[in-house]
Amino acid sequence: MKKIGFIGLGVMGEPMAMHLLEKYHELYVYTRTKKKADAIINKGAIWCETIGELAEKCEIIITIVGMHTDVQDVYLGKSGLVNVCNPHTILIDMTTSSPSLAQEIYEKALTKEIFVLDAPVSGGDIGAQKATLSIMVGGDENIYHECLPIFESLGKNIVYQGKAGSGQHTKMVNQIVIAGNMIGMVEALVYAKQANLDVNRALKSISSGAAGSWQLQNNAPKIINKDYEPGFFIKHFVKDIHLAQEEARNVATDLPGLDLVESLYASLMENGYGNLGTQALIKYYEDEEF
Amino acid sequence: MKKIGFIGLGVMGEPMAMHLLEKYHELYVYTRTKKKADAIINKGAIWCETIGELAEKCEIIITIVGMHTDVQDVYLGKSGLVNVCNPHTILIDMTTSSPSLAQEIYEKALTKEIFVLDAPVSGGDIGAQKATLSIMVGGDENIYHECLPIFESLGKNIVYQGKAGSGQHTKMVNQIVIAGNMIGMVEALVYAKQANLDVNRALKSISSGAAGSWQLQNNAPKIINKDYEPGFFIKHFVKDIHLAQEEARNVATDLPGLDLVESLYASLMENGYGNLGTQALIKYYEDEEF
Repeated sequence: MKKIGFIGLGVMGEPMAMHLLEKYHELYVYTRTKKKADAIINKGAIWCETIGELAEKCEIIITIVGMHTDVQDVYLGKSGLVNVCNPHTILIDMTTSSPSLAQEIYEKALTKEIFVLDAPVSGGDIGAQKATLSIMVGGDENIYHECLPIFESLGKNIVYQGKAGSGQHTKMVNQIVIAGNMIGMVEALVYAKQANLDVNRALKSISSGAAGSWQLQNNAPKIINKDYEPGFFIKHFVKDIHLAQEEARNVATDLPGLDLVESLYASLMENGYGNLGTQALIKYYEDEEF
Repeated sequence: MKKIGFIGLGVMGEPMAMHLLEKYHELYVYTRTKKKADAIINKGAIWCETIGELAEKCEIIITIVGMHTDVQDVYLGKSGLVNVCNPHTILIDMTTSSPSLAQEIYEKALTKEIFVLDAPVSGGDIGAQKATLSIMVGGDENIYHECLPIFESLGKNIVYQGKAGSGQHTKMVNQIVIAGNMIGMVEALVYAKQANLDVNRALKSISSGAAGSWQLQNNAPKIINKDYEPGFFIKHFVKDIHLAQEEARNVATDLPGLDLVESLYASLMENGYGNLGTQALIKYYEDEEF
């Protein structure tokens, strides 16, 4: 059995690492803020002081960190994984990150006989806790198959998407769909209120038909209750939208809908709403600051 | 039993009228082009030569015509329903039409003791055929209850939305949601193709999660197969968007997402794509004309 390491014990990473520890009984962990590792160390995970120490001990290493700049550091920094891992190590980045960066990491790692998968997830903290994440994987297909048991202990809808970067690209596709669903839902709710409709009744009419969506089901009721707690942070969504725009620009593709949604969320960020959930987009329409 | 009349035997109206004929055995019909009534006359429906003749014979009259300008003619024209019906007639307009016009018709009819419901539907021709339409109803609640057996023979998700115009407003809410879902889905597919993803696989990863929607389920596969046959015509969707924009402007509400989608569909109309299905929005991104 290959030894498994895990880097990044945030709101997503911690429950994921817990599932791996339960399944494999042995797990090496590192995270920037050691305090975040306390719970899992208490359950028996083995703490590593540095990425280098973890790299030395492990043959498969999973990362899920905050921003794609963190991914860059963790993988390509001087003491980053690509520079410190042994040949034949398998690295799996589950952060939502840049497709181009994923390709770059894959290629640089390959020159050292290190194999990398990009495997971002959707399903949020609840999905991480319940091990029901969707996992979209890019990289070499044989490496994917070798890692499938790991993925199966973390998620339900696991799909191999193709060569390196394809996992990240698929996550971008996911976020672009959500951007549109979000603006449609929010503008519809704004209209419904202005028209003095009973908004819950209106939702009852439309939710099961051609307007139906996960967002309408899950976020519209939150908006009606003025509940802006993050299921997914605005600041993270904006990060993802920027990554998608960057990739789209690389191939000279105009996505005016995505650009519009980005500009509205950018206004929200400027007004200090980055830590609210994405459903707080309605504030752009209803708050007087805008 | 009150005698029922039906005006408008198009792709939606004909199957709806058929259901009523089956349930009530007696049905009076009128439509602008008599040929369209042949099938239902053969089944036993009674043809009326004019709206006036139908109005004279019927106590409940259902209309589902093309545009809101047709609604205006049929209801408020010199020989229109409001001017020719007997007092205590109930009129039900199931066309997707202007909320303001619905309110105007309701008020003018009321002065003649004629009662009007606005009851637009969603679910398309399939919903009309299978009697599974969503029906959103505005007008007096006691009149709604009196007409409920009629609605129940036409649809499944029947919701009383409030005073006159509320049915139409709810349909606008439905269309605004769809506008957003449509642009999100289409831009995501454009991105996926540019990124050289296997688009079907990408859909497999994202359709069951937070990006999931009726549109993604039903229209994304059509787009992948370049099937632009109308489930719902672009020209009708543009009509609906204009109605929603008009109402939004009345209350000085800006809906930039809706405006953007409108401008893209307007380009498609100008290029002669009005008779394609709404999923042909992708042509804006992929055809060289744009």
